[in-house]
Amino acid sequence: MIRLGRIAYVNMAPVFYRVDAPFEEVSGVPTDLNRALLAGECDLAPISSIEYARHAERLRILPRLCVSSQGAVESIQLVSKTPLERVRTVAVTPESATSVVLTKVLLPEAEHVPLGEEADAKLLIGDAALRSAFEDPTPHYDLGHLWLERTGLPMVFAVWACPDPPPEGLPELEDALVASVRLARAEPEQLAYEASERYGYPAGFLARYFE
Amino acid sequence: MIRLGRIAYVNMAPVFYRVDAPFEEVSGVPTDLNRALLAGECDLAPISSIEYARHAERLRILPRLCVSSQGAVESIQLVSKTPLERVRTVAVTPESATSVVLTKVLLPEAEHVPLGEEADAKLLIGDAALRSAFEDPTPHYDLGHLWLERTGLPMVFAVWACPDPPPEGLPELEDALVASVRLARAEPEQLAYEASERYGYPAGFLARYFE
Repeated sequence: MIRLGRIAYVNMAPVFYRVDAPFEEVSGVPTDLNRALLAGECDLAPISSIEYARHAERLRILPRLCVSSQGAVESIQLVSKTPLERVRTVAVTPESATSVVLTKVLLPEAEHVPLGEEADAKLLIGDAALRSAFEDPTPHYDLGHLWLERTGLPMVFAVWACPDPPPEGLPELEDALVASVRLARAEPEQLAYEASERYGYPAGFLARYFE
Repeated sequence: MIRLGRIAYVNMAPVFYRVDAPFEEVSGVPTDLNRALLAGECDLAPISSIEYARHAERLRILPRLCVSSQGAVESIQLVSKTPLERVRTVAVTPESATSVVLTKVLLPEAEHVPLGEEADAKLLIGDAALRSAFEDPTPHYDLGHLWLERTGLPMVFAVWACPDPPPEGLPELEDALVASVRLARAEPEQLAYEASERYGYPAGFLARYFE
């Protein structure tokens, strides 16, 4: 049975809404899944787009699924009291690969230190970023928004990838994941209620987030 | 002393953050303040922009203050399970004047009924709209966003107006209100903490809202 990675954030709810195919779930933060896929502990996973780029020769990408945004992505936030042009140090989450590199592109002068250390700004992703934007009045800079401002382009944060040659049963599972996302889009209220129950955010907040 | 209207929603927090001038506060929903200003029970108030337009010959506008948005305003929401192009009835809040007319412009075919009656969609404003967007997974259509899509223009929902001739002490109070908004913009975290305490929303949510 295909061992399928699942990012342990609420943004996965549409992909896993109704998957009509067999799989074994491997849950973790993005950097866990990057490692697990490359180590052969997982057969298919959403991995950081930068990590795919680094290992493209060993991997096959699933072109119909990704985590992307045109503008605000909400779950990737640079939190900073210091105006961005004066940020010299950023404390970065160990959970992310793409957004760490994106921060380097956006703020090339800033040195990175581990999250928890003293810094001008901190980089949060996933549910920690969503929660922080909600609870903490410190200015939050959405990386999807900064990227759109800088380039006019959408940003792809994660792609679904598998080893090449792909595992047996991949086309059926890919179809089932795409169908799940489609169904989730067609039933936004049901998706919001179920995700609210599982992840603990208010249903309306999640409905707006999934839009 | 000038009797100054205050809309009873969290969006007034920046205007009333630090008002360094004497005034007497008259609180109410927008339609209350529209009525109070025209009835002479209040000397200066944020009133619905459509109500200003209806009585422009009797009123003087304060050009440095307004409630406006370029795109999403967040606190004015059309809540509808029915796709907008098929909405035939809208239940509208009695608290609003501008957004009721705006709904007529955006959905000219739809009949309006009082809030609480059966309808395809409902129009909410102020804190009820903010709360609904947060709690209710039903699709929400932001009127500031719909207006920008339709026209490419920002929308002015309320203007500060007084009778003509204006009350004594108006220039000083106007200066103090503008200074309050400026200080609130310069101290976004303090504003968010204080508004959070008064209105009960999380501080981060309010900081993003006031941005």
